[in-house]
Amino acid sequence: MGSIIAFGEIMLRLSPPGRGLLLQSPHFEVGVAGAEANVAIALAQLGHDVAMVSALPDTSLGDGPLATMRGYGVDCAHVLRSAGRMGLYFVEPGTGSRNTDVIYDRAHSAFIETPPEAWAWETILEGATRLHLSGIIPALGSHGAAAATRAASVAERLGIPISFDGNYRAKLWESWDSDPRSILTELIAKADILFGNHRDIALLLGRSFSGQGPARRREAAEAAFAMFPRLKLMASTSRHIEATDLHRLSARIDRPDDYFETGEIVISGIVDRVGTGDAFAAGVLHALAQGESDAKIAEFGLALSRLKHAIPGDNLIVRPRDLEMLSAHGQDVRR
Amino acid sequence: MGSIIAFGEIMLRLSPPGRGLLLQSPHFEVGVAGAEANVAIALAQLGHDVAMVSALPDTSLGDGPLATMRGYGVDCAHVLRSAGRMGLYFVEPGTGSRNTDVIYDRAHSAFIETPPEAWAWETILEGATRLHLSGIIPALGSHGAAAATRAASVAERLGIPISFDGNYRAKLWESWDSDPRSILTELIAKADILFGNHRDIALLLGRSFSGQGPARRREAAEAAFAMFPRLKLMASTSRHIEATDLHRLSARIDRPDDYFETGEIVISGIVDRVGTGDAFAAGVLHALAQGESDAKIAEFGLALSRLKHAIPGDNLIVRPRDLEMLSAHGQDVRR
Amino acid sequence: MGSIIAFGEIMLRLSPPGRGLLLQSPHFEVGVAGAEANVAIALAQLGHDVAMVSALPDTSLGDGPLATMRGYGVDCAHVLRSAGRMGLYFVEPGTGSRNTDVIYDRAHSAFIETPPEAWAWETILEGATRLHLSGIIPALGSHGAAAATRAASVAERLGIPISFDGNYRAKLWESWDSDPRSILTELIAKADILFGNHRDIALLLGRSFSGQGPARRREAAEAAFAMFPRLKLMASTSRHIEATDLHRLSARIDRPDDYFETGEIVISGIVDRVGTGDAFAAGVLHALAQGESDAKIAEFGLALSRLKHAIPGDNLIVRPRDLEMLSAHGQDVRR
Amino acid sequence: MGSIIAFGEIMLRLSPPGRGLLLQSPHFEVGVAGAEANVAIALAQLGHDVAMVSALPDTSLGDGPLATMRGYGVDCAHVLRSAGRMGLYFVEPGTGSRNTDVIYDRAHSAFIETPPEAWAWETILEGATRLHLSGIIPALGSHGAAAATRAASVAERLGIPISFDGNYRAKLWESWDSDPRSILTELIAKADILFGNHRDIALLLGRSFSGQGPARRREAAEAAFAMFPRLKLMASTSRHIEATDLHRLSARIDRPDDYFETGEIVISGIVDRVGTGDAFAAGVLHALAQGESDAKIAEFGLALSRLKHAIPGDNLIVRPRDLEMLSAHGQDVRR
Amino acid sequence: MGSIIAFGEIMLRLSPPGRGLLLQSPHFEVGVAGAEANVAIALAQLGHDVAMVSALPDTSLGDGPLATMRGYGVDCAHVLRSAGRMGLYFVEPGTGSRNTDVIYDRAHSAFIETPPEAWAWETILEGATRLHLSGIIPALGSHGAAAATRAASVAERLGIPISFDGNYRAKLWESWDSDPRSILTELIAKADILFGNHRDIALLLGRSFSGQGPARRREAAEAAFAMFPRLKLMASTSRHIEATDLHRLSARIDRPDDYFETGEIVISGIVDRVGTGDAFAAGVLHALAQGESDAKIAEFGLALSRLKHAIPGDNLIVRPRDLEMLSAHGQDVRR
Amino acid sequence: MGSIIAFGEIMLRLSPPGRGLLLQSPHFEVGVAGAEANVAIALAQLGHDVAMVSALPDTSLGDGPLATMRGYGVDCAHVLRSAGRMGLYFVEPGTGSRNTDVIYDRAHSAFIETPPEAWAWETILEGATRLHLSGIIPALGSHGAAAATRAASVAERLGIPISFDGNYRAKLWESWDSDPRSILTELIAKADILFGNHRDIALLLGRSFSGQGPARRREAAEAAFAMFPRLKLMASTSRHIEATDLHRLSARIDRPDDYFETGEIVISGIVDRVGTGDAFAAGVLHALAQGESDAKIAEFGLALSRLKHAIPGDNLIVRPRDLEMLSAHGQDVRR
Repeated sequence: MGSIIAFGEIMLRLSPPGRGLLLQSPHFEVGVAGAEANVAIALAQLGHDVAMVSALPDTSLGDGPLATMRGYGVDCAHVLRSAGRMGLYFVEPGTGSRNTDVIYDRAHSAFIETPPEAWAWETILEGATRLHLSGIIPALGSHGAAAATRAASVAERLGIPISFDGNYRAKLWESWDSDPRSILTELIAKADILFGNHRDIALLLGRSFSGQGPARRREAAEAAFAMFPRLKLMASTSRHIEATDLHRLSARIDRPDDYFETGEIVISGIVDRVGTGDAFAAGVLHALAQGESDAKIAEFGLALSRLKHAIPGDNLIVRPRDLEMLSAHGQDVRR
Repeated sequence: MGSIIAFGEIMLRLSPPGRGLLLQSPHFEVGVAGAEANVAIALAQLGHDVAMVSALPDTSLGDGPLATMRGYGVDCAHVLRSAGRMGLYFVEPGTGSRNTDVIYDRAHSAFIETPPEAWAWETILEGATRLHLSGIIPALGSHGAAAATRAASVAERLGIPISFDGNYRAKLWESWDSDPRSILTELIAKADILFGNHRDIALLLGRSFSGQGPARRREAAEAAFAMFPRLKLMASTSRHIEATDLHRLSARIDRPDDYFETGEIVISGIVDRVGTGDAFAAGVLHALAQGESDAKIAEFGLALSRLKHAIPGDNLIVRPRDLEMLSAHGQDVRR
Repeated sequence: MGSIIAFGEIMLRLSPPGRGLLLQSPHFEVGVAGAEANVAIALAQLGHDVAMVSALPDTSLGDGPLATMRGYGVDCAHVLRSAGRMGLYFVEPGTGSRNTDVIYDRAHSAFIETPPEAWAWETILEGATRLHLSGIIPALGSHGAAAATRAASVAERLGIPISFDGNYRAKLWESWDSDPRSILTELIAKADILFGNHRDIALLLGRSFSGQGPARRREAAEAAFAMFPRLKLMASTSRHIEATDLHRLSARIDRPDDYFETGEIVISGIVDRVGTGDAFAAGVLHALAQGESDAKIAEFGLALSRLKHAIPGDNLIVRPRDLEMLSAHGQDVRR
Repeated sequence: MGSIIAFGEIMLRLSPPGRGLLLQSPHFEVGVAGAEANVAIALAQLGHDVAMVSALPDTSLGDGPLATMRGYGVDCAHVLRSAGRMGLYFVEPGTGSRNTDVIYDRAHSAFIETPPEAWAWETILEGATRLHLSGIIPALGSHGAAAATRAASVAERLGIPISFDGNYRAKLWESWDSDPRSILTELIAKADILFGNHRDIALLLGRSFSGQGPARRREAAEAAFAMFPRLKLMASTSRHIEATDLHRLSARIDRPDDYFETGEIVISGIVDRVGTGDAFAAGVLHALAQGESDAKIAEFGLALSRLKHAIPGDNLIVRPRDLEMLSAHGQDVRR
Repeated sequence: MGSIIAFGEIMLRLSPPGRGLLLQSPHFEVGVAGAEANVAIALAQLGHDVAMVSALPDTSLGDGPLATMRGYGVDCAHVLRSAGRMGLYFVEPGTGSRNTDVIYDRAHSAFIETPPEAWAWETILEGATRLHLSGIIPALGSHGAAAATRAASVAERLGIPISFDGNYRAKLWESWDSDPRSILTELIAKADILFGNHRDIALLLGRSFSGQGPARRREAAEAAFAMFPRLKLMASTSRHIEATDLHRLSARIDRPDDYFETGEIVISGIVDRVGTGDAFAAGVLHALAQGESDAKIAEFGLALSRLKHAIPGDNLIVRPRDLEMLSAHGQDVRR
Repeated sequence: MGSIIAFGEIMLRLSPPGRGLLLQSPHFEVGVAGAEANVAIALAQLGHDVAMVSALPDTSLGDGPLATMRGYGVDCAHVLRSAGRMGLYFVEPGTGSRNTDVIYDRAHSAFIETPPEAWAWETILEGATRLHLSGIIPALGSHGAAAATRAASVAERLGIPISFDGNYRAKLWESWDSDPRSILTELIAKADILFGNHRDIALLLGRSFSGQGPARRREAAEAAFAMFPRLKLMASTSRHIEATDLHRLSARIDRPDDYFETGEIVISGIVDRVGTGDAFAAGVLHALAQGESDAKIAEFGLALSRLKHAIPGDNLIVRPRDLEMLSAHGQDVRR
């Protein structure tokens, strides 16, 4: 397996322990977060050669997440240490009839204040087999948009395939004088893999899709393939939420001329829903790299996503020896 | 919104963390409890001007709950500091197939040993828009019964409306030479709002109601309105328990000549069922003060009660900015 | 009630708190474990005179579990303190879509390295009403097999009834040059009670049973009664796993000429599935000692097993005053 | 070694973790406490046959301390389970320039409400080699005074030696219409061992002692031996407090015609000073039972007391294998 | 006692538990911090009528510290809720040979982004007896400098005395194009009380003081009184650090024509040195308000500061009932 | 700086939190330990290119310490994953008058059961600048002795300098039929740096040294240089223990014809003494690599060792930005 480069912000995640609330909590649990970092961590555990490109403050606060990522096996040689603050986010995981609540505190972070030219993309991407980006970086402001575009452009020039996870966050885009449609369009035009569903595509194309269920999803995918000729694969999930800890989920792979959609599985006893999309993306990228069929790709992505719902924190924890368990529903104690 | 006066005991709640048992537990989590205090805390967070009338021991043990209540915005100027012990209660929250267990240790507390005349009710109630009491105070003994009666009498004389939450606890009444029926009848006769269901009314009237479901509930309500001419509104919930962490709940408002009953909602993943009745009462009082319709009142009370099931501890935590979320079932991460 | 003797290893159980993973966990919760110890602890709490026969290292690590067992009321006068290490096992309790994972670290323990003759079985068993063994001891190696056989032989000679819990662990048997079928056959031939299902019997008899459901279970039981003429009672459960925290369970008692099988109950919100088989065994032994009917025996075993699913750790915690609650499904707060 | 009987209340100790304060603390650590229970726990660990005589409520709150005491090896067959509340005490251990603070909440406990005749002292004391009492029981009220006197009278009649630890608590005596001097005089008159210093004796004799240091201590001891002819040994410590975590301590044994006083040792890094007097008493009783010289008795008591200062909670934790370490000052890691 | 107004930022303090390090820590303890908030909290506990003037974000993160401050009895009606982030600071308390480390993350906070005119100072200060400011606000940037100056100017116009705590932080001043000397000079010129030592004055006057010890301190004070004619009192401490947990400290009050300096006390077993200067300031303001002599003022300030060294977190916890203990060095358990 | 290779066992360290005892503790804190791993972790943080050579079990228990070491920046490509158990050790850190206690549970670990030929030493050592070993590996048994000898022989052949830390553990050597003197002599004969004091040398040479203090230390060093002609530098510390948390320590460098000994420093408030020798070794190796004078080498080693006493766990945590603080005694808060 070749080397995968993920570019994005590494954040510190602070959340109340157990099922507590931010307001009540006398202490916060500390973890590592960030959509692209989550993908990198999952892929590294599965045996991929993964490097994270990012920036962290040169303080104890930056040392911690750096150590965590290295611990999972992610190459952090291109994580710059610079001035600026640590990007934080506070999560109050919901349960039963209480929603998960998130407070971002990532403005002015060392990452977002790093000038795009600080990363030597030609060097970084040399010999890489893939660059993974998400829609969060460009949403962070003009600095982020420039950084993402620069990375994508170098990758394009070097012929390195790009995977792009939509991760559309309206609030972030609305916080500055942004034009998400044109920025995202430019980025996705360079990608061969897009993680996103019909809502993402509707936004990019400025239109809506009239059908229902799988038909609507296919209609949107076809529109995307028409607009983005380099795109070879789209991956998405459909989620139905019955309670904060009880969801139903299916996964889908679209190709320009074919698609596969899994059945819907029930995910009960949800511990932490955050990061389940990143786990899906990692699963798809892994199965794809293994040369699996689209059905297997969709199912493996769904299996990793399902597992993440049962793991506290942002990061999927999965080792090759766990893979055999993934397809099994409702197994007993392993001993 | 005017000022609401809640009168009752403030207790320290001690419970094992997570899903542990009292016997196993090397430490106890510390919280604030008490039916009337719970109502006060919820209403203060929703923006009401709320004052608690109570008594706490003049020790560090009393300082803690006082600080917590003030922190939620409850005016504690009428919480006396006096001799006597801190009222305690130990809770072992159940889960799955294990019931919640409660051990009260509130006898001889500073609150119950405070003579009824220690509180200057004329001063306290001046300008108040409501006095909120519950059936727990009179159940605590003759001292408690006298204190509740005194508060209610002054309110009656000053023309301040009284809301009364039945909270019938047979064990407390049985622990002394009590006449619950006559004491409660005297108190409820002064109230315009009663929180209680057909079982409470059956007890007060010394009769049973023959029907089933909503019909029986209406029959009881009509009997109560007939007996207590000042009563303008009765609010109650019906609960079906499938497992300790899976209940179904509906809410109901009765008026002398009308009623509204919500559909039954499923409450799964229950974290802590204690305090859910107090959350309902607070929701009803809030929606009523906002001039909502009876349907909205019932639904808002039910929504607050539903939310409380997902919050550890006795206290509902809800801020005005959370209200928009309350009606939604099964929402995703807010970000 | 007479005195019950349990023979087996006492282990230290280390597990991440809450719903965490071993890998993530900055600390481990410490508990006492071991199939036979779990049975002893449950029976002692229910008022039986129970003695544990075992060996622990003479260090602080051995002091802890000894104190815990004595605390539950188990007589530990025959727990030797000797050289060798503390038997450990690490548990990562699953949740939702994540399985429970177990890592044993019990080789070379003080228990398994204790020579069989170190326990004075004639003295220990004097006046006992029952010896309880399980299939784990003989699976631990030739030392364990010799120790179990020695204990069973003395009991047989003294006419003391033996209960035997199959607890078949393929991995343990495969780790040495073992002949599980002959060893287990020799042991079960001395027993009057066997905890085990059709899979255990198929293994012992080297054959399979063709039917489905209750019919197959009866066929297997009849084969076992035929092979083991001393056997008077077989007890077993059937488990269907829907998610790691949602199971369905039924219980069954077989007699040579009759049987009883309970309906299937739903067990939701499972906190810790480990030890639920030991809780069942304890329940059966208790109800049997009380002279209950087979139906009551099966239901009481099932009720204790159900309760254990809601208790963290290996040990069932149940006091005589809790028994009245056991048969009730879905009760509300006890106060 | 024969059997030692300790009579007193078993309390639950609740304290903030680490160096926190009661007011700040979101949780309390739970432990077992009580002067006589502390002595019993220490002696049982050192290999003595010790039985506790007490009463605990028949709830989960009572189950916990009972299990802890049994775990340490104390025979609890004479710990009654009865109505009444659990005796509690809250401790805020000091540090540096902050004092340790204690809040007792033991009134109306199951122990103190148990009628003196509930314990079958003739049976309990049969075959005992010693009855250990302290001045706390009679200080708890007339019930306590009667219970202590009854126990002492039966012991006297059966010829069983009594050790008595003064533990004078002015606040307790002042809380009821008590005559401490006459009650304590009656009890001490029956004892052969008294733990107490010149201040205790001054109080009993209603006089003061004019000297300084060892001379004053000897003068007081001689006065005590003169007044209490059965007394054979007095044991006491002298403490100088430099900071909450830095004390100097010496120990002393007085005999009617001789005495021994150790040099003063420095005790730094104090973790928990509570229970250090009980550890001293246990050390003296142990060394005495071993037939040691008065010098060794004083030094052993002092060594156990010193060790207790470094152990959180009320209970001394010491095992026979630790004894060789006790005399050493400032040893390095044991490995 | 009249009403004291404190103006400053309220921060969330995040620190590793126990004696851990930020890098190692899987969780952070959460507390409230800020020099002026610390003074307000201490004074409110001592019975003063204290109001905090500040701004907090309108999120759960802002709700927590607001609740804490209200809990201590500080009036928070003038704490605005606004946009912007929560000011954070991370503390790694040192011990023995490891220094305490602090990481500020307070830029762009809701407080500092609040325009100075957002606070209605005329209304806020009406009837106040004192305005308390510190050198931290103006150091935070031109916004902060303007806000502090505006508050001080209104106070000056209304004739309300101002106390000013130097709290000189070079790093903050150096982070923007500041002129600390002129800004601080303008503010201190309006104050009647200055907390600061010879180093602060040297900085303000642009000169150094040649003497040693008390002589140098007096020389500096006289220079300050000469430069700031409104100044009536200067309070300061001198600290000698032997180890991170062992300091020596003295306190001093200077008047234009007199001074008092306490002896040096040893402070051992230091738990948390942060906030000890704020505790001193609160002690001085309290004793002054009580009309104490300068010697008593210095000693009381020193006693509160000494106590704070033994309390984890930023906030001094002291209740009127604790005051009698403050002067005592090395007391034993209070019971 | 070139690449340093450390060879040794990586253990999991389990210890009670705070100042608790193993027996009392309901949970254990989990950390990484091992003398050579500690040196590797410290050097990697200081910027060295460090690789660990070891073996860990292929389970979650092995994943954790691997992640921790990688997190600190240690190259773990030569940490084999194999069968066998995780090496554990339990630490009960002492305090004040209580000693630190250690229980090893490392027999049969994956590391010690790995055959010496499993590591490809020629490849591993290619281009290395140093191999670091300690006396613990050969003490673990003949397997360990063979593994250490093999590594040292390859290094010798490749001309790579070897540093050797005596770390003499009598208990380990006595647990098998060992000849420590000949094994250690063979290993040290290949080394250019020896960490060890006069007691280590006395053991190796089978003689004692008659002098006192520095003279005796020099006499021993000269004997060692005479016996081991390749030896260029010896480094050692002298420790005086006043209490478990108060030591005095000096450091010393011996060269064949010269030496330097630092003054003695006081180390108070000790949090965890374990690993302080490894921190010293890392400090000496670092300063040596920087080309510092012997005085600076001794002082830097002493400074790192001093710092480690204030850090919980086995691992020194020190970043380049912390180095400027190391020489300072008793600094105040850094902010």
